[in-house]
Amino acid sequence: MKFFSFWRSLASFRVRIALNLKNLSTEIVFIDLDTNAHRTDDYRRVNPQMALPALTLDDGTVLFQSLAILEYLEEKYPEPPMLPVDALGRARVRALALMVACEGHPLLVPRVRRYLDNELNLRDAQQAAWRRHWTVETLAALEGHLARDKATGRFCHGDQPTMADVCIVGHVTVALAQDISLAPWPTVKRIFETAMALPAFAAAHPLAQPDTPEAMRTKN
Amino acid sequence: MKFFSFWRSLASFRVRIALNLKNLSTEIVFIDLDTNAHRTDDYRRVNPQMALPALTLDDGTVLFQSLAILEYLEEKYPEPPMLPVDALGRARVRALALMVACEGHPLLVPRVRRYLDNELNLRDAQQAAWRRHWTVETLAALEGHLARDKATGRFCHGDQPTMADVCIVGHVTVALAQDISLAPWPTVKRIFETAMALPAFAAAHPLAQPDTPEAMRTKN
Repeated sequence: MKFFSFWRSLASFRVRIALNLKNLSTEIVFIDLDTNAHRTDDYRRVNPQMALPALTLDDGTVLFQSLAILEYLEEKYPEPPMLPVDALGRARVRALALMVACEGHPLLVPRVRRYLDNELNLRDAQQAAWRRHWTVETLAALEGHLARDKATGRFCHGDQPTMADVCIVGHVTVALAQDISLAPWPTVKRIFETAMALPAFAAAHPLAQPDTPEAMRTKN
Repeated sequence: MKFFSFWRSLASFRVRIALNLKNLSTEIVFIDLDTNAHRTDDYRRVNPQMALPALTLDDGTVLFQSLAILEYLEEKYPEPPMLPVDALGRARVRALALMVACEGHPLLVPRVRRYLDNELNLRDAQQAAWRRHWTVETLAALEGHLARDKATGRFCHGDQPTMADVCIVGHVTVALAQDISLAPWPTVKRIFETAMALPAFAAAHPLAQPDTPEAMRTKN
């Protein structure tokens, strides 16, 4: 398998965690979004949408969209599982993951930032307010669900990490990068810290990748 | 089952199609987003995120997030299937569905429109340009994937409707509501027309619901 990744891409972060959890190794191709490497003809042939991540199989099949890749990895490499065994549990885990992937994340991606900058001429303070608003809204929505539900355990669903944790840590990472205190969302904070203590999650962190710029890299 | 729906909600549209395809009947609770019915304490108890749709089971379990609901319905009521039998086919269908749910749709929802209006003070022309920009971007991305892939058939994947079609018709409906010509995306256009010719899709259309305002209702 060949995995097309970028250190800062939160969708790449999700797939990195899943590959680590399932102990799968791939060739990694770093696509530098900052130099528009995703807009080259080479990458467009891989993914006409010019978005990250993508995963190509040995037969040339290209998988795209991070959650579809997670579901594929779960089906092909079921151990350890990222989804519960029961249909209701799976529905809950998928819904928590989708709250991040369909609501929090899409408003924070580079192409939206570019539109706010180039088309709407938003200055730094307005851009920061935009990011903060949507980051906080999703944190609050996650806390609302996680805090009230007895299915929440050490992780989002029970005591093992699932696709929900895989998605939520990226959203919390974005919040921390904005210096947003997690105090109002104690369940989210606790689960984030529990998940990031796992090697599979820690090793996937955006600031710990081979293509992370040296100045930003986490020092260990 | 009790289904919380709003005629104009594209995420509700997806679940309506799936319920129709699988010939499932539910009690329907209409939540009028225009009068903020989703922000009442009653609905907040159903879904703390105050978003549509939601599906409550007879034991009181609440399912939320449209794609998680589709996956649940697929698992519990497998016939007729909305996902292919092979893992690669499932990955492709899910990815196409996620292109709409995670990229096209999130930028077009009412809460974003309110932010553009109230916080950024965007006037009608700028709001229309925003909607058009993100609508077109996803149409182009979908065409890029659908046109080049031999797995595309009468529908997005082969000759039976899948979750991909369930999601894509909503995005095309939004495009048509903005008077965007589909001519540049002939594969998307063809699949949309094929899908909307099916009774399960047609009956789920936003303009054909019991809570559709009379002035907007499709006349048959």
